[in-house]
Amino acid sequence: MKIALAQLNYHTGNFESNINKIRSSINKAKGLGADIIVFAELAISGYPPRDFLEFNDFIAQCNDAISNLAEDCVGIAAIIGSPSINPNVEGKDLFNSAYFLADGKVKHIVHKTLLPTYDIFDEYRYFEPNTKFEVIEYKGNKIAITICEDLWNIMDNPLYTVCPMEELINQKPDIMINIAASPFHYKQAIIRKNTLQKNAAKYGIPLFYVNHVGGQTELLFDGASLVMNGFGEFIDELDYFKEDFKIFDSETIQKPLLNKHTQKLTSEIELIHDALVMGICDYFNKLGFKQAILGLSGGIDSALTLVLAERALGKENVRAILLPSKFSSDHSIEDAKKLAENLQVKYDIISIEEANDCFTNALSPYFKDLPFNVTEENIQARIRAVILMALSNKFGYILLNTSNKSEAAVGYGTLYGDMCGGLSVLGDLYKTQVYELAHFINVEKEIIPYNSIIKPPSAELRPNQKDSDSLPDYAILDKLLYLYIELRQGPKEIIAQGFDKKLVDRVLKMVNMNEYKRHQTPPILRISSKAFGMGRRMPIVAKYLS
Amino acid sequence: MKIALAQLNYHTGNFESNINKIRSSINKAKGLGADIIVFAELAISGYPPRDFLEFNDFIAQCNDAISNLAEDCVGIAAIIGSPSINPNVEGKDLFNSAYFLADGKVKHIVHKTLLPTYDIFDEYRYFEPNTKFEVIEYKGNKIAITICEDLWNIMDNPLYTVCPMEELINQKPDIMINIAASPFHYKQAIIRKNTLQKNAAKYGIPLFYVNHVGGQTELLFDGASLVMNGFGEFIDELDYFKEDFKIFDSETIQKPLLNKHTQKLTSEIELIHDALVMGICDYFNKLGFKQAILGLSGGIDSALTLVLAERALGKENVRAILLPSKFSSDHSIEDAKKLAENLQVKYDIISIEEANDCFTNALSPYFKDLPFNVTEENIQARIRAVILMALSNKFGYILLNTSNKSEAAVGYGTLYGDMCGGLSVLGDLYKTQVYELAHFINVEKEIIPYNSIIKPPSAELRPNQKDSDSLPDYAILDKLLYLYIELRQGPKEIIAQGFDKKLVDRVLKMVNMNEYKRHQTPPILRISSKAFGMGRRMPIVAKYLS
Repeated sequence: MKIALAQLNYHTGNFESNINKIRSSINKAKGLGADIIVFAELAISGYPPRDFLEFNDFIAQCNDAISNLAEDCVGIAAIIGSPSINPNVEGKDLFNSAYFLADGKVKHIVHKTLLPTYDIFDEYRYFEPNTKFEVIEYKGNKIAITICEDLWNIMDNPLYTVCPMEELINQKPDIMINIAASPFHYKQAIIRKNTLQKNAAKYGIPLFYVNHVGGQTELLFDGASLVMNGFGEFIDELDYFKEDFKIFDSETIQKPLLNKHTQKLTSEIELIHDALVMGICDYFNKLGFKQAILGLSGGIDSALTLVLAERALGKENVRAILLPSKFSSDHSIEDAKKLAENLQVKYDIISIEEANDCFTNALSPYFKDLPFNVTEENIQARIRAVILMALSNKFGYILLNTSNKSEAAVGYGTLYGDMCGGLSVLGDLYKTQVYELAHFINVEKEIIPYNSIIKPPSAELRPNQKDSDSLPDYAILDKLLYLYIELRQGPKEIIAQGFDKKLVDRVLKMVNMNEYKRHQTPPILRISSKAFGMGRRMPIVAKYLS
Repeated sequence: MKIALAQLNYHTGNFESNINKIRSSINKAKGLGADIIVFAELAISGYPPRDFLEFNDFIAQCNDAISNLAEDCVGIAAIIGSPSINPNVEGKDLFNSAYFLADGKVKHIVHKTLLPTYDIFDEYRYFEPNTKFEVIEYKGNKIAITICEDLWNIMDNPLYTVCPMEELINQKPDIMINIAASPFHYKQAIIRKNTLQKNAAKYGIPLFYVNHVGGQTELLFDGASLVMNGFGEFIDELDYFKEDFKIFDSETIQKPLLNKHTQKLTSEIELIHDALVMGICDYFNKLGFKQAILGLSGGIDSALTLVLAERALGKENVRAILLPSKFSSDHSIEDAKKLAENLQVKYDIISIEEANDCFTNALSPYFKDLPFNVTEENIQARIRAVILMALSNKFGYILLNTSNKSEAAVGYGTLYGDMCGGLSVLGDLYKTQVYELAHFINVEKEIIPYNSIIKPPSAELRPNQKDSDSLPDYAILDKLLYLYIELRQGPKEIIAQGFDKKLVDRVLKMVNMNEYKRHQTPPILRISSKAFGMGRRMPIVAKYLS
């Protein structure tokens, strides 16, 4: 049986576009003699559709799309993810389903059993879990269809008390097909491949897996749809970060491989690079914007953001603004200019000095002789935001935020100042990862001025300021933050690994006290297993480690 | 059996404070001869603890608190909500539990079966549902303990396929005790009472119900813990929006009432008023802040916000700043002054004209002869934000946001301008509700200047601007928004109710296109069944009705 895998970049809620993409893939597969074509989980709606699922109108449009596409499925079958209505009175109103379309109609509907509800996933918010298990017969093949998480209960400490494949295997399926919406993080591709490999090996039948690709606000889908044989051996995979389409013959992959495929191993930093470029690109395209603006300081964060934006949008679509103050060092301006010139990106220099004087005067009757403190630093950052947002509003740019995860974690940034923007590009990269990515970009030639990379980081909001005046060394800070944020370790566990108790207490307190700031930040492109944003939900008003 | 109900205001993650409150209630109840004292759901941690639950350290502190409190339970039993660790390998790591403490130790642990995972609730994110049902015997009484949602599956279209009381009633309990964390919205008190009444009547035994009280960031808990007899008759309730404590004798409420209690009926607008005042108060208290600042425009939104802040924090703790521009009308400044004087609140006038000229000059080489548009409007709003945030930073005020729900819905506000603030007070009130609440405040005397209420709403960001230039009449807009936001009706359903198709399409598009703005707003005190914030989760990048 010839099985086509269609790895597409869907646009949430854009039924017209999603249907057209699916239809043209069905026609292509038919033309190439495929028996079945497989699309991703919730392909019709895009993933995640979030609370659109609570609108009957939205569900009706999903159902209409399925009905229309069913008519295309003559001479070919299609498996397509879409929500379906739960016919039972009890339970949630919807299932997360895989429609099996053939002979011009809906032949079967298979529902998802295991509903991920953790990190960025909210599936039990919307869906009733499946409780009935049936393989589907088509052209003499018994197919066990599962949806994403359904194959993930294979760990030692399973998250669910049911295991769908344990039920389905009793019906002796010939192949497994899994449709998924499995978002990228920089370790996920390997974890995912291991999980799928375990399934194929355990159940002893080939596995065909189709994932989403593309950026959905903060979530980045890397694609990497794949095929395993029944010996748990890797047969082939589809592209990363791009749409792709391939056809496989389920007969020819029944035997163990004589020569194991060598899989290309991409470094984590290259994956992160490609994910971010795709994420910027899709954020703009899907919102209908073309052009980005950002404040270029001469520091490494804005430099790296500019490079990624230029790669995603093209040099003609990116504008850099240098916003010097009396605290800006000469080399900062020079480094910023040099980068803009390296990239051939348009830049302008707008001093914030006059505006700063103006606010200082307006506030002097109230501030009187109170000493210069973080207030005056914030004013500078906010003046820059006013200027950048004015240009953004006037010319239709999206302002890119240039904060990194280390800063966001400890609240080292100005709300309504440098924390502004439509999209945070680096907000899920610790400062040490920012350096790593800058080096990756410079590997062949000096794109980011070497000076931006080697100079001590500084916000340049007071004379001779350095990040290290207020923060521990990033090499230490980032390790500590990783233990707390990604691994959810508490102070005792962290201290037990050799970190200074005072430092740990201080840093964790900073993280927890700054939830209010992170609450108001732009969406952050997610590249780690625990990003600030929809996947990390903390109380703002609380007193825990703070 | 004498049962004490302790309705307390917990502080999320503040174990010391929560334990002290619980302990002193246990001692008080013991002193008054109570047999059992009942506390709310997840009382130990505060509700909602959100992702703190993912930290082993946090769970260990909950467990320590329970162990300590158990030692106090000699001569009295206590039922206290806290997370507990799931001993099974399969399933989520935690249960949402009610600990039954007596004889100085943990005697029983009852787990929650129905885990609300919709709107503001995320319980299946953390907890494994209970599957075992056992009543607890104490002093010759069989007690059916359930946790909040466990009693809510009694509707015609039940959300769950299990009904805990249907299991427990087989064991012939004498009373029901339900511990809850049921947040306020302006229709919730009645819905809740009806639901509890149905349970008491259906199962024919008295029901003792303990809720949280207090503000937890955006969530407001109204308390209103209550007792029903086995005939579904209302016996008594605890206070609204305040801590309270009462003892009931389960024997004396076994008979039907001869004279039904007449329950005080509080108007929705009074409930909203009290909820908002409590919400402001708790937001400040629990964050360790005392003083608020806000921009007072002379319009109704900031006027109402100021009154509520003054009631929550005291007149000495609120500061109003008038920030006029050349577009501000004389009456605006006069109305703002008059309100500040009525309330005896300190105010200052800081013109934004000079700063506005400064930005205009800085940007003129780029804007050239382009016409005045929303860009210049936004600059004014952002200058105000810079000044307010500078005062906030310098003196330790929290800036109160004064946006309403109608504006937030259609994006009629400036990001990093009037959308700034630490807390949005009116962000869940439609403009028509803002008027209603202003009238309620003025019912005895003119506190909010009458002129602020009757003049046509205006942002005063360009000459003779009125909200009605850009938006439909609020009376129509608000009805339409309610159908879309609260009732999740689609365009067809709304148009079928007589709204103009063009208007509906335009408004729904505005709502959906402005998710990016709402993503960056402060927490909004929730008073409706569907507030912007944690309970409404929409994609930013999407194309549905937009």
